[in-house]
Amino acid sequence: MSVHRGRHFLQIPGPTNVPDRVLRAMDTPVIDHRGPEFARLGQEVLEGLKAIFQTRSPVIVFPSSGTGAWEAALVNTLSPGDKVLMFETGHFATLWHRMAKGIGIEAELVPGDWRHGVDPAAVEARLADDRSHAIKAVAVVHNETSTGVASRIGEIRNAIDRANHPALFFVDTISSLASIDYRHDEWGVDVTVGGSQKGLMLPPGIAFNAVSEKALAAAKSARLPRSYWRWEDMLANNQSGFFPYTPATNLLYGLREAIHMLLEEGLPAVFARHARLAEATRRAVRAWGLEILCLEPREYSNSLTAVLLPDGHDADRLRRIILERYDMSLGTGLGKVQGKVFRIGHLGDFNELMLAGTLAGVEMGLRLAGVPHKSGIGAALAYLSEEATADARETRAMRA
Amino acid sequence: MSVHRGRHFLQIPGPTNVPDRVLRAMDTPVIDHRGPEFARLGQEVLEGLKAIFQTRSPVIVFPSSGTGAWEAALVNTLSPGDKVLMFETGHFATLWHRMAKGIGIEAELVPGDWRHGVDPAAVEARLADDRSHAIKAVAVVHNETSTGVASRIGEIRNAIDRANHPALFFVDTISSLASIDYRHDEWGVDVTVGGSQKGLMLPPGIAFNAVSEKALAAAKSARLPRSYWRWEDMLANNQSGFFPYTPATNLLYGLREAIHMLLEEGLPAVFARHARLAEATRRAVRAWGLEILCLEPREYSNSLTAVLLPDGHDADRLRRIILERYDMSLGTGLGKVQGKVFRIGHLGDFNELMLAGTLAGVEMGLRLAGVPHKSGIGAALAYLSEEATADARETRAMRA
Amino acid sequence: MSVHRGRHFLQIPGPTNVPDRVLRAMDTPVIDHRGPEFARLGQEVLEGLKAIFQTRSPVIVFPSSGTGAWEAALVNTLSPGDKVLMFETGHFATLWHRMAKGIGIEAELVPGDWRHGVDPAAVEARLADDRSHAIKAVAVVHNETSTGVASRIGEIRNAIDRANHPALFFVDTISSLASIDYRHDEWGVDVTVGGSQKGLMLPPGIAFNAVSEKALAAAKSARLPRSYWRWEDMLANNQSGFFPYTPATNLLYGLREAIHMLLEEGLPAVFARHARLAEATRRAVRAWGLEILCLEPREYSNSLTAVLLPDGHDADRLRRIILERYDMSLGTGLGKVQGKVFRIGHLGDFNELMLAGTLAGVEMGLRLAGVPHKSGIGAALAYLSEEATADARETRAMRA
Amino acid sequence: MSVHRGRHFLQIPGPTNVPDRVLRAMDTPVIDHRGPEFARLGQEVLEGLKAIFQTRSPVIVFPSSGTGAWEAALVNTLSPGDKVLMFETGHFATLWHRMAKGIGIEAELVPGDWRHGVDPAAVEARLADDRSHAIKAVAVVHNETSTGVASRIGEIRNAIDRANHPALFFVDTISSLASIDYRHDEWGVDVTVGGSQKGLMLPPGIAFNAVSEKALAAAKSARLPRSYWRWEDMLANNQSGFFPYTPATNLLYGLREAIHMLLEEGLPAVFARHARLAEATRRAVRAWGLEILCLEPREYSNSLTAVLLPDGHDADRLRRIILERYDMSLGTGLGKVQGKVFRIGHLGDFNELMLAGTLAGVEMGLRLAGVPHKSGIGAALAYLSEEATADARETRAMRA
Repeated sequence: MSVHRGRHFLQIPGPTNVPDRVLRAMDTPVIDHRGPEFARLGQEVLEGLKAIFQTRSPVIVFPSSGTGAWEAALVNTLSPGDKVLMFETGHFATLWHRMAKGIGIEAELVPGDWRHGVDPAAVEARLADDRSHAIKAVAVVHNETSTGVASRIGEIRNAIDRANHPALFFVDTISSLASIDYRHDEWGVDVTVGGSQKGLMLPPGIAFNAVSEKALAAAKSARLPRSYWRWEDMLANNQSGFFPYTPATNLLYGLREAIHMLLEEGLPAVFARHARLAEATRRAVRAWGLEILCLEPREYSNSLTAVLLPDGHDADRLRRIILERYDMSLGTGLGKVQGKVFRIGHLGDFNELMLAGTLAGVEMGLRLAGVPHKSGIGAALAYLSEEATADARETRAMRA
Repeated sequence: MSVHRGRHFLQIPGPTNVPDRVLRAMDTPVIDHRGPEFARLGQEVLEGLKAIFQTRSPVIVFPSSGTGAWEAALVNTLSPGDKVLMFETGHFATLWHRMAKGIGIEAELVPGDWRHGVDPAAVEARLADDRSHAIKAVAVVHNETSTGVASRIGEIRNAIDRANHPALFFVDTISSLASIDYRHDEWGVDVTVGGSQKGLMLPPGIAFNAVSEKALAAAKSARLPRSYWRWEDMLANNQSGFFPYTPATNLLYGLREAIHMLLEEGLPAVFARHARLAEATRRAVRAWGLEILCLEPREYSNSLTAVLLPDGHDADRLRRIILERYDMSLGTGLGKVQGKVFRIGHLGDFNELMLAGTLAGVEMGLRLAGVPHKSGIGAALAYLSEEATADARETRAMRA
Repeated sequence: MSVHRGRHFLQIPGPTNVPDRVLRAMDTPVIDHRGPEFARLGQEVLEGLKAIFQTRSPVIVFPSSGTGAWEAALVNTLSPGDKVLMFETGHFATLWHRMAKGIGIEAELVPGDWRHGVDPAAVEARLADDRSHAIKAVAVVHNETSTGVASRIGEIRNAIDRANHPALFFVDTISSLASIDYRHDEWGVDVTVGGSQKGLMLPPGIAFNAVSEKALAAAKSARLPRSYWRWEDMLANNQSGFFPYTPATNLLYGLREAIHMLLEEGLPAVFARHARLAEATRRAVRAWGLEILCLEPREYSNSLTAVLLPDGHDADRLRRIILERYDMSLGTGLGKVQGKVFRIGHLGDFNELMLAGTLAGVEMGLRLAGVPHKSGIGAALAYLSEEATADARETRAMRA
Repeated sequence: MSVHRGRHFLQIPGPTNVPDRVLRAMDTPVIDHRGPEFARLGQEVLEGLKAIFQTRSPVIVFPSSGTGAWEAALVNTLSPGDKVLMFETGHFATLWHRMAKGIGIEAELVPGDWRHGVDPAAVEARLADDRSHAIKAVAVVHNETSTGVASRIGEIRNAIDRANHPALFFVDTISSLASIDYRHDEWGVDVTVGGSQKGLMLPPGIAFNAVSEKALAAAKSARLPRSYWRWEDMLANNQSGFFPYTPATNLLYGLREAIHMLLEEGLPAVFARHARLAEATRRAVRAWGLEILCLEPREYSNSLTAVLLPDGHDADRLRRIILERYDMSLGTGLGKVQGKVFRIGHLGDFNELMLAGTLAGVEMGLRLAGVPHKSGIGAALAYLSEEATADARETRAMRA
């Protein structure tokens, strides 16, 4: 195979392109994790994370993948045999459910078609049925990385409230955090699960639990065995900026820089940028004549788009052609949509021209793979330049 | 406080000074963890780790601190209520014991004075007593990071064999791996626990389990709940260089470079270098008129030296003075030796002149702190230049 | 102004996007420039540069910009009052001419329209006229960075030969080296001037003279004062890999890596890649309905394209809009084409998807700036995917 | 030869150890050198350099080694045949003299013994003799890198004034800038020559001219040919933060960071640190029983110390042994002291413990090389801890 030159396009829905500022911040000598300089680092990132999760509650940082933070959410709050309500929104929701069952939780999985988010009405109905309050927690994936469908967390919160049900509310924001608006406090979430390698623009290696008062209370009586994931020691040590075991120092350096970058841009601007790039992507998909996996426009994900290929076309062959010819990685179809779907990640440290390169790569790949399509990049560019014009008009108006 | 210039001396017993080559290797864009380039990376590091652990068995890599790898060793092989024999060699052995108890294991802790390693005879006696083979595992810390005492793993293996006992054998090599000779296969260890941030010269963030056939067999019937730490999915995915959940890619880049560096130098040379620098340190300590915590010369650690201060002198005050005046971090006394002991890390990417700077910093600190002592650095330098002479003589002899 | 996220697109015709591998190579501690490790570095890069210039003659490396290497070519070979024949191909040829006059050379500038390269017939005619061989040197800019016109060096060589004229032949390859085929030896060039920051993919800071035997002979009698630029001391020191004064060590680290990358890809593949991306760019320009500054297709530059805007449209306003809205830098019109022309750099560490992003940025910018145009990116993508198809067909044919 | 591990000790008197912060700053994508972001960078570093040179006059930055800045000082201010008064303080003063002669200046070299600085009385006497004011400039090397002797620039200024002579005053501060107190304005220097790779803690590759009003006036009538080194275009472009030819952007990134670091520490603290480390070095040399090349205590250099070996001992053999055994580079004896002298660089990003490692390496090397000596490092450490005590006492007093 020929040698590739220029940048690789990493357009899987995470890990995402890590900005140079973050890589450079990580490229720094390790310091004593029990010394005063570390304490300042620890306190700064723990405080900064609260802004990212939109919470006043503590956020716990584990040296782990996001999978570990899933486990932490469960083992800190639940006891063997506890009932948890989960929803089959896609591959990751399914894996979380499998994990819960594997560690002794009685997890119910409400079936889904992988093309819709969690239905708030269904949540309300199921909880209303649960008169005995046997269900201890409702666990939802905010943005299904396998399908590009974003569930409406605020409305699900309202559904739980309408059912007047005391269940804990767990939300996985691994592929939505710092990309799609997410409000831990306002939406009354008890444990938010997050990871480093998506909207936070870091390499993988640390993961998060934002933890409400109610969750902390639940932890007191929860009886699932836990040690590494135990919140109590973490929170006690975090008070002074330290950790109960050796933290992943260099990833924390990167985290500090990433938080700076996000707050410098401002979360509303971060979300607007993701929304704009996502909409441009969807316009390109439609112009190509291909189908977006997500069927419900108000559930479109702004961090990735999963695209269905016509019958008889193998999405993984397309992905391989694009990787070989244009040095771009796209997301594979996971689980039951394997081979049928490819996923375009458009999150993290990403902008208009990178998206144009991405869409160009897909479009040229469709041609090489012989997938019938029309040109689509023009539709994306038209939208993006209209948005820029509107934006300019607004800026002028504001200044006037 | 004044601004420090020049390099910080990170002489805690880990995390250690990360070589520039490793930091630079990590300062590289993330790649698709499901793509072909990643598969090559994964296979290379998984294979290379075997050389470091001196094993043909698989080595599992977790995105976690070493604490997580402790937990993994236990939950993969044991069931609730299983008996494990542990030894109070110091702070970390005590923590591992506490973890075991916390997750439902009946862990027995043989008391110790924190100045000796595990006594092979005591192991033999205790196991010989255990006629019913109630003890399922013996767990030993190879090099106690809190005391600078290295237990004799080969001899303990022989003790187990002499007792003809089927217990699994677990060894924590977090602060010995790639610094002090360690042989997973030859010493019949079932689970070796390792970490990235000491002799491996990486930042913290990944940890290891080297796993024998016998341990894998035990995993089949072990009933402690596990998900994140589960070996089975790891091993299945590792076959092709992949991982069941998102790996800490950039730390794996660093790991690849670190393994290259270790094999380039050669493990015997790595061990000899650590032995030489450790002996020079001990000579300085003795010349200062201070006491080495470890009482048994054949148990001296080659990765760190814990030094006792005379009564009435606070080791943490000394450490603070040295940090403020000379920008060097030393290890604090942990647990019951807090304030009495300071620890000099002399492991990892380390050499004669860095050691001289380190010992100079301690010596000047002793002076500033008013701790009575004689000059000691001369004794270290004398030893190191004799070693260099001997080495040169040998090289000439070999060439002749 | 809003914060930009994602990569900046640096599409000026140099400095170009420095690959991470090169930046990382430079991010390495400095070494003793008189020690054995440096000698190996020096010899490696000096040897490697010969491959890049396609020569067996020595290549001299100055810590300087390309401007310094212009001066070096002149002061090493000429004496005050010497006649040199130069050609007004654009801004940089004009600057080189001004420099020559400024240091006491009688430099003749053959006028040009900035839309054509040097006419070999004109060279032949002018030299044939010079019966007395008063002209000591002919100096040509291979690729005019200000216009995107590449002169035909091989044909100019033939023209000199046909005129049977002994003049030295100087060629500036600052923006063609390692992007457009260039052959120092085959084309009988006496001094080739090169720089680091274009096709060589390095930051600016070092520049080159490749020097023929004939040029070295000329240096013996040349009487222009020179010290820093003096070849003799350089060549004497370079024999052993050293330099007469402190070299720019870290740029040499980068140079070593850049040479590795170029030879890894292979110069023919490097040139083919640049040709392909340049042709795609020109197709987009034509589809937009805009005019390419270069009028002669066989003189199209493969490293940049200068584009004329219609009357009444300010190219610098367009560039400013694109910089502000899409975070892309394009080249300004220099000298007499200022405001009329913008330049797209498509050289160095560059590929299809980066080009697509670049062309998208121009196209959206044209829209925002109100410059009349049709969509053009589709034409570029069509060409690029045809090329990929042809390429794939060829690969299959070769394997069969 | 065996593989070295741990940090190389780069203790030549420059290039010096580049701090990680500076290396990381340089490890950043290149930007458009004609764009607004560059203008901010340019203005910031040009302003910051004034603080470092202690001047309000402009400081010019060349992409070149320090040798280039020597040439720039001469060609901008002088005409062919002009007389310049120079002083043979060592190797570099000799080279500067040779350069001056080589480019057509009538340079007089006052002989010296390489063990003393310039004698202010001799300057006064020579200038007083020059009734016709034939001497156009006096050129002095502030700190002779080859000998470790620092001339007294302020006193030389006074001598010129006492002679009432209008000569320009040129000072080379390549190895003193940002290490030893130097005051361009207060000492009435007309051109100060500086480089990046010593006290400024950067890699080599850029060099400086700080230029007085009087020097600028002289430039108007100076007739030596010049183009690359020409101040006029530089100053005109620098007004807006730009440069007349492509600047060495990534070195400017590093320069910005280095200036931040120097001002953060404060120049007085920088000078005090260098003085302290230099005095400790000299105490070690004396304790070893070796001779410091510099004979005049008030001319001791605070950036390096040149040490004489006893007759019959080869300094380069010693250096080779130290490099091979202890991975430390020391400066060679240059010119007429070759083989007799080695030089210890103790400047730049340097501190007490790095110095201790350095002195330990020399001391162990002396032993291996069989050079008779007593132990010396103890004397250095005693001095350094006394200084720390005094410093602590002072701090307490100031707080009280």
